[in-house]
Amino acid sequence: MATSGVMSGLEMHDFAWKLWSLPRSITGSGLRRTLEMISEELGGLSIYEVPSGTAVGDWVIPDEWTLRRSILIDPHGKIICDSDVSNLHVVNYSEPFDGKMELGELQQYLHSLPDLPTAVPYMTSYYERRWGFCLPHQIRERLVNGVYTIRMDTDLQPGSLTYGDLVIPGKSKKEILISTYVCHPSMANNELSGPVVSTNLIKYLRSLNSRRYTYRFVFAPETIGAITYIHNNLEHLRKHVVGALNLTCLGDDRTYSLLPTRGGKHRLDTIARHVLKHLSKDYVEYPWTSRGSDERQYSSPGLDLPMISIMRSKYWEYPEYHTSLDDLVDLVTPSGLQGGFQAIQRTLDILECDVFPGSNIVGEPMLSRRNLYSTLGGSRFSVKRNLLLDVWSFCDGTNSALDIAHHLNLRFDEVLEAVTVLQDNHLVVTGPVLLD
Amino acid sequence: MATSGVMSGLEMHDFAWKLWSLPRSITGSGLRRTLEMISEELGGLSIYEVPSGTAVGDWVIPDEWTLRRSILIDPHGKIICDSDVSNLHVVNYSEPFDGKMELGELQQYLHSLPDLPTAVPYMTSYYERRWGFCLPHQIRERLVNGVYTIRMDTDLQPGSLTYGDLVIPGKSKKEILISTYVCHPSMANNELSGPVVSTNLIKYLRSLNSRRYTYRFVFAPETIGAITYIHNNLEHLRKHVVGALNLTCLGDDRTYSLLPTRGGKHRLDTIARHVLKHLSKDYVEYPWTSRGSDERQYSSPGLDLPMISIMRSKYWEYPEYHTSLDDLVDLVTPSGLQGGFQAIQRTLDILECDVFPGSNIVGEPMLSRRNLYSTLGGSRFSVKRNLLLDVWSFCDGTNSALDIAHHLNLRFDEVLEAVTVLQDNHLVVTGPVLLD
Amino acid sequence: MATSGVMSGLEMHDFAWKLWSLPRSITGSGLRRTLEMISEELGGLSIYEVPSGTAVGDWVIPDEWTLRRSILIDPHGKIICDSDVSNLHVVNYSEPFDGKMELGELQQYLHSLPDLPTAVPYMTSYYERRWGFCLPHQIRERLVNGVYTIRMDTDLQPGSLTYGDLVIPGKSKKEILISTYVCHPSMANNELSGPVVSTNLIKYLRSLNSRRYTYRFVFAPETIGAITYIHNNLEHLRKHVVGALNLTCLGDDRTYSLLPTRGGKHRLDTIARHVLKHLSKDYVEYPWTSRGSDERQYSSPGLDLPMISIMRSKYWEYPEYHTSLDDLVDLVTPSGLQGGFQAIQRTLDILECDVFPGSNIVGEPMLSRRNLYSTLGGSRFSVKRNLLLDVWSFCDGTNSALDIAHHLNLRFDEVLEAVTVLQDNHLVVTGPVLLD
Repeated sequence: MATSGVMSGLEMHDFAWKLWSLPRSITGSGLRRTLEMISEELGGLSIYEVPSGTAVGDWVIPDEWTLRRSILIDPHGKIICDSDVSNLHVVNYSEPFDGKMELGELQQYLHSLPDLPTAVPYMTSYYERRWGFCLPHQIRERLVNGVYTIRMDTDLQPGSLTYGDLVIPGKSKKEILISTYVCHPSMANNELSGPVVSTNLIKYLRSLNSRRYTYRFVFAPETIGAITYIHNNLEHLRKHVVGALNLTCLGDDRTYSLLPTRGGKHRLDTIARHVLKHLSKDYVEYPWTSRGSDERQYSSPGLDLPMISIMRSKYWEYPEYHTSLDDLVDLVTPSGLQGGFQAIQRTLDILECDVFPGSNIVGEPMLSRRNLYSTLGGSRFSVKRNLLLDVWSFCDGTNSALDIAHHLNLRFDEVLEAVTVLQDNHLVVTGPVLLD
Repeated sequence: MATSGVMSGLEMHDFAWKLWSLPRSITGSGLRRTLEMISEELGGLSIYEVPSGTAVGDWVIPDEWTLRRSILIDPHGKIICDSDVSNLHVVNYSEPFDGKMELGELQQYLHSLPDLPTAVPYMTSYYERRWGFCLPHQIRERLVNGVYTIRMDTDLQPGSLTYGDLVIPGKSKKEILISTYVCHPSMANNELSGPVVSTNLIKYLRSLNSRRYTYRFVFAPETIGAITYIHNNLEHLRKHVVGALNLTCLGDDRTYSLLPTRGGKHRLDTIARHVLKHLSKDYVEYPWTSRGSDERQYSSPGLDLPMISIMRSKYWEYPEYHTSLDDLVDLVTPSGLQGGFQAIQRTLDILECDVFPGSNIVGEPMLSRRNLYSTLGGSRFSVKRNLLLDVWSFCDGTNSALDIAHHLNLRFDEVLEAVTVLQDNHLVVTGPVLLD
Repeated sequence: MATSGVMSGLEMHDFAWKLWSLPRSITGSGLRRTLEMISEELGGLSIYEVPSGTAVGDWVIPDEWTLRRSILIDPHGKIICDSDVSNLHVVNYSEPFDGKMELGELQQYLHSLPDLPTAVPYMTSYYERRWGFCLPHQIRERLVNGVYTIRMDTDLQPGSLTYGDLVIPGKSKKEILISTYVCHPSMANNELSGPVVSTNLIKYLRSLNSRRYTYRFVFAPETIGAITYIHNNLEHLRKHVVGALNLTCLGDDRTYSLLPTRGGKHRLDTIARHVLKHLSKDYVEYPWTSRGSDERQYSSPGLDLPMISIMRSKYWEYPEYHTSLDDLVDLVTPSGLQGGFQAIQRTLDILECDVFPGSNIVGEPMLSRRNLYSTLGGSRFSVKRNLLLDVWSFCDGTNSALDIAHHLNLRFDEVLEAVTVLQDNHLVVTGPVLLD
């Protein structure tokens, strides 16, 4: 079902539930089905397949992984791990295995978290052949001695890696790249919040009458998918992309976070800090050394796209990270998703709306004859500061509305509203702020 | 009487008394007479008249205001307000009115200050027709019921706005603009300190053998007068003015203040901060958002003259501001005026005297053979720092004497004296520092 | 004996003892013999003589000073001061004098330190004819009344000033100038640590297979020697020298110190701060106004070589400075000299080894297939930061290894090692960092 309306927090949460149980990985049917469902939601996504064995940068596309129902059975016939119950029970990219094993030997194939005994950990082994099961530590501790039956029903065969993209044209050919990843199985903050907010941003941008920038949305597996996307579009990205956002960890209610560009001094960083400061003065800014998502690829030396990540609780920084506790019940909520969406939306609004206002007149405007200023002057009690005059005093063509907001310690939208009043009164003319 | 000598603090205070009771406004006879008396003091000021109705920038010159004796009489025939006692009793630019009114109806035309019950507030209504009386709150509270007689004997008729200027030529055609305003009736810090110090600076600059810069002094009503001056001299100001000072609030003894240029990084700001730091380490620097005088016009976008205000207690920031308590008895004193004058004088001295010294030699000068250094060396007790060598070590042609003063944490005049010794000994040559 | 091996701290200390008792001054046999012994240690130094009377910059080479055994004898025939016991007993550059004098008259020719009663002070009078003896204050206080015999057996005759230099060629004609002074008699931190560490650095640089820069070592008397060297080599220095170090005060164990370049923002300053921070986080950085050695000449306006001094306890800043207590027994030690040498050596290592690495690939390198990264991913417990990837992420050709060390708060050698691993794996190429 294609909807044109922007989703509420609850609708984003519902959409995340629809994608929840697909067995996503860096290749395979779970990834492919996820992209199809996003495509259906948006009324079309361009989907690409890149064959196993293709060299991309320093990497090679691996064989495609297929997961069928895989189970671990104890000596009494009781099912201990079942991929149909949670796809996290299987080490992602496990090779096929069918056999029996004493508990002692089996232990090396089991993964659990002693400090989070109720959680199923998320484990992967993309580039070395292994198999394994993940389970809560409290269950592992109660496993009985004896012979266990392993039915790891997977395939690792030449196939392809799948990714999708969607371009929303704007007045300028300059592009804002918005990338999110779709390779993690049943986890909510890291990852479903990313593709869900991305989907909603597409709806939001389409709802605008026009756009200043062209927007390029990418849905791909993390790391290998981003590298593949880069190498299939390298010259285009170098030529057109002027700013980039990585969408991840946008769903919980706890905090807001920023991973800035490598240099930390791009206009995107300034915009993001402005948005986050006014959303939550306690937001956390991380250093570049805390990076850990696709900015590692898009901001790679030799490409150097200025990419930021605006997040709620950042990957690595919340206890449920990369476990079954990163869920849609206790951690990621409708309001959490709504807050994450709003932070990105305000960032895009500044990208779309910031202007350089230049005064039309020399000497201050006479606001009183326009009913914009008190006509009774002189008193010590008259208003000392006037927002319109404060804003106008910076309208020399070199300060953008956002720059003026910083000079005056105001919100961007307050300044933009003042600029609009000045413009409506023919006191300033404006030109767009465009990233280089 | 034209005097050529520079005035003392006491003489400046006397001159302020002479101007005290003239009924100044943004037009009219009080303004005109004020300019004539300054002209007489200086032996000539160019005085200009701009007709009512003339468009200047976003504004229009209003009708000219004439104030004759205006009084408010209570039901017992007692005079409550009398413009002959203080011109502050009349709302500036009051329209004529002659009539009788019950106290209840009259109240809307009265202005007083509950928190300063002995003060007559200063009120204006230049651009909307009104009339009103201002009086001490303690008197207002004791007004008896009954019918009051109002004799507001004013005129609002087409006439002209008056301003004056005076140019002191220097070696360079580059100009320093020094503007002050002459539209406030009987108030001392804000405003008579401004025109009085301005008058004295003209005397001071004339007393110099020569001047590096040309100085342009402007005496005009605030806001509308400055805007008028700008539009009558726009191309000239754009072409020649390289620095500007607004003279206001230069008369009390309490503190020193700086309103910097909009960007805050002009050489004028550096000079002013240096002067003020050495006059009073507790001086206050205000942000651009605290501006409130003619820098709003001269630093307007599209003209952008770098203008600073060096002040004693800044407008808005002292309790007597814009009331009858801003007087020449308790607030503004000879020593206060002298301090204000001195701050501006030192600023101009740095503008006139700062140089870029460049060494004539490679390797340190031998000071001992010039009797500038001890001949007995070696001891741990010999002087470790030598002012001449410290200064000389920065004489690479890129540091001015003021820059060196900052590097060495010295006063400008200490460094200039050292540079002069080095120059007299043929160890450095100097070139003038000129604003761009 | 010419040795090719680098000296240990103990060997440097032994070499300082060999030079200890030579009667060094700004001219004469003690200076000449010192240079010869350094030349012997290094297998050759170019030695130059500049005649008395030669004008150099603002100075003139003075007459040459010869010191023979000079003594002061008390009324009982007891020798109070004897230049054979310590050359510090004679005011350096004393003129000849042979005569008798009452104690009262003699006092004006005596120098001692009341606050350091056991120390013989170091005094000089190069440019004004004087004679004098220096002695411990506790001995001076016990001098008996009566007639003293003075035998000041010196010469002040036209001769020459001596200095030496040595150039070690490198791949580039760009030169690093390393200057040290050889004019102080028996003192250890200020001065023998300087020429001794300089000698050892020559051995170290020769031990390298090749050098990026050409190194120019200068051994000259302080001030007049440096000025002479500059004027005899002015155009060469201007054309070729891109960085300079002044070697002094490198021998005690107490602290590390830095006197930066005049501007304090040269790459040499950055390197020195990095080296010192990692040697001792409590190192002291002094301001330019604390300068007091040959940076006064080499960084003179008109030449402006960027010169730094990396020191242990800085001249002026330790109580034994310029007295007989600045010795090789209690103050300057083998470990102190080794630490001083090491600080300079690490500075030269960064000059020689720093590179700009640029990535060969777009998108991150795949470290796991090179056994440089764990193959089992996903877990919250996997290593969050990877040194190789952190370093590589800055390899955009604009950051040097030292710059990356600052970004990552690591030591230079840690980053250089990572760059080397990346280079060995063909992931980056590098180019040298050369001072301009």
